[in-house]
Amino acid sequence: MVTNHQVLFNKVQPTGLPKPGETTTRGSAGLDIDNVALNGGVLTRNIAVSLDPTMRNRMKGDIGYFTPAYVVGKPVTAIGIAEVVRSEVDDFKSGDIVFVWSLGIEEYTLHPKEATAGFRKMDPTALSSGLSITTFLGAAGMPGMTAYMSIKEIIGDLKAGNKMFVSGAAGAVGQLVVQLCHQAGVKVIASAGSDEKCDFVRSLGADETINYKTENLPAKLKAFAADTGIHYYYDNVGGEQLEAYINVAARYGIIVACGYISGYNAEKPEDVVYPKNLFNIVTKELKYQGFIVSSFLPKWYGKFMEEVPKMLAEGKIKNREDVTFGVYGAEDAFLRLFTGENQGKVAVLIDTERAERWNLGKQMQGAKVWK
Amino acid sequence: MVTNHQVLFNKVQPTGLPKPGETTTRGSAGLDIDNVALNGGVLTRNIAVSLDPTMRNRMKGDIGYFTPAYVVGKPVTAIGIAEVVRSEVDDFKSGDIVFVWSLGIEEYTLHPKEATAGFRKMDPTALSSGLSITTFLGAAGMPGMTAYMSIKEIIGDLKAGNKMFVSGAAGAVGQLVVQLCHQAGVKVIASAGSDEKCDFVRSLGADETINYKTENLPAKLKAFAADTGIHYYYDNVGGEQLEAYINVAARYGIIVACGYISGYNAEKPEDVVYPKNLFNIVTKELKYQGFIVSSFLPKWYGKFMEEVPKMLAEGKIKNREDVTFGVYGAEDAFLRLFTGENQGKVAVLIDTERAERWNLGKQMQGAKVWK
Repeated sequence: MVTNHQVLFNKVQPTGLPKPGETTTRGSAGLDIDNVALNGGVLTRNIAVSLDPTMRNRMKGDIGYFTPAYVVGKPVTAIGIAEVVRSEVDDFKSGDIVFVWSLGIEEYTLHPKEATAGFRKMDPTALSSGLSITTFLGAAGMPGMTAYMSIKEIIGDLKAGNKMFVSGAAGAVGQLVVQLCHQAGVKVIASAGSDEKCDFVRSLGADETINYKTENLPAKLKAFAADTGIHYYYDNVGGEQLEAYINVAARYGIIVACGYISGYNAEKPEDVVYPKNLFNIVTKELKYQGFIVSSFLPKWYGKFMEEVPKMLAEGKIKNREDVTFGVYGAEDAFLRLFTGENQGKVAVLIDTERAERWNLGKQMQGAKVWK
Repeated sequence: MVTNHQVLFNKVQPTGLPKPGETTTRGSAGLDIDNVALNGGVLTRNIAVSLDPTMRNRMKGDIGYFTPAYVVGKPVTAIGIAEVVRSEVDDFKSGDIVFVWSLGIEEYTLHPKEATAGFRKMDPTALSSGLSITTFLGAAGMPGMTAYMSIKEIIGDLKAGNKMFVSGAAGAVGQLVVQLCHQAGVKVIASAGSDEKCDFVRSLGADETINYKTENLPAKLKAFAADTGIHYYYDNVGGEQLEAYINVAARYGIIVACGYISGYNAEKPEDVVYPKNLFNIVTKELKYQGFIVSSFLPKWYGKFMEEVPKMLAEGKIKNREDVTFGVYGAEDAFLRLFTGENQGKVAVLIDTERAERWNLGKQMQGAKVWK
């Protein structure tokens, strides 16, 4: 018997910041890992999970979101990586490392057979390429795919000399967007929530940065737009920054609508800011397009895995991580996503005992670590 | 010497409805059509002009609109059709009928040579096909191109069985959108501002209509969406109707952003309604794209002229017109675009004396005529 530590969803919370201990709570349950009945499914030992802002919307009850709301009393789920302990599914055997779209934030998960349709077996070659396993939750994982595939699909080929505004630029997705644009010869202006984050984003290749908490964002955007306007906007935040972009958009500007984090934790619906200049969508001939990365996987997954892990291994792309140790740490780590205390891609390392096995020691160099 | 009657732009008016006699005013000037110096340009006798809601935005001074603001004291300009009287430009000769993107609302216009770059000589075969000349300002002209080309470019192939919401459906653009969708097997729900207009729109093939002034638009949209959602929205009005669509959009829904007429005449900026549910752009993976039809002409003009005038001549497409006689009538006709008193495509017939020459008698059958 082992004790399976878990972070459980505890209370539907439509507004405000998530509250560790209230929105979510710590739980544990005894588990006989050798003998528990699998009923045709799979038992995994969970290695790490990715915490993403969009999870906040699954804590609001049924809001018509395509990803289902969390269930009170059950573990919060997230994108994660796990090792198969026992399996009654032919495709998976003990020792396989699997990428899981919906993994409980807990040490062990029992997956019914139908849930394993969402597993993707990880390539042992990639795992031994020198990248840490949490990188496959960051730049080589969902946020990396998000940045890469949405640019390919919504913008197409980036045009050298064009200008891009990236909000939330120090975050998991933003940092890769900045680098992909910089490499393509696009001029980048990036916003983030502290001077330190702005320094980091400049180190990735941003030409100009805006600390949106202390600087005049519309004025800096306008100066950067100069007489050409800004051709692209990678929107992680919505609200005032979206409105400011629309005012300085170039004709035929493209808005990649990745998230709307400015509205996720509003205390009241009327606190969420929406742009009051949408008529410009018509007159400037803008395209404003949203997406969920899973829609792009069938078309782009192969090309992504061919290109991006290699660029990471060669140091051509940086991936700043913010790693929290231990399953219970997920509660505070999730809150930090919204207070801005995180530094880069937020992951929770669940299997801390065997961390070294997946290059985590190496990864920790340069990562912000919370123990 | 003749007297050239003109409608002049008289006063910049940022808010409210246009005011005949104040925003615009009636003028006249003597003109010696036989001897006036052309200075290398062209003199036209103007036949008809098209009045379009977007012209309202050019009466607001410099609002960063790509089409330039009107100049106080000069004739209001519009898309129109004219006959060349005298020409010092090699490409044009006396008697040519030309389509002009920027024609003064006046009986005669003197065009400098560089302005004739915006002329398009009309094909005599098309002119004699039985269509009236004002049709080339409606379904076979800019509004027709707008409907046809924006669907081709922003939606692509319409999918039979999908659902479309069209706002402003009895207007110049909307009536063609309804018919193109119906012909493609798309199920159409359409909004308009009176029961009579709704009847008309149903006669064009709309499956369901909403009188937005008297009926509960969100409820009717929701019922029509049922469990599939609505796949397309052709947006002529913005505001509340846009917000209502976003709430019932199908995943991957497409919004063709053609106009935002609900906001054009607001008394105060804060009276303009903007949707408060843009987060759905992300979660439903919507595409919301604006355009100005001139951007699509190079790619689609040929195909449009091949298909649409033929469909009109064969009666496969209907084109309801609202024709005002005489240049001075343009002032009231323009106001009717916003009060909703117009019925279909609003055109002003300037050269009433020679109307018969261009099948206008025929066209007047079924048109609303204001004399």
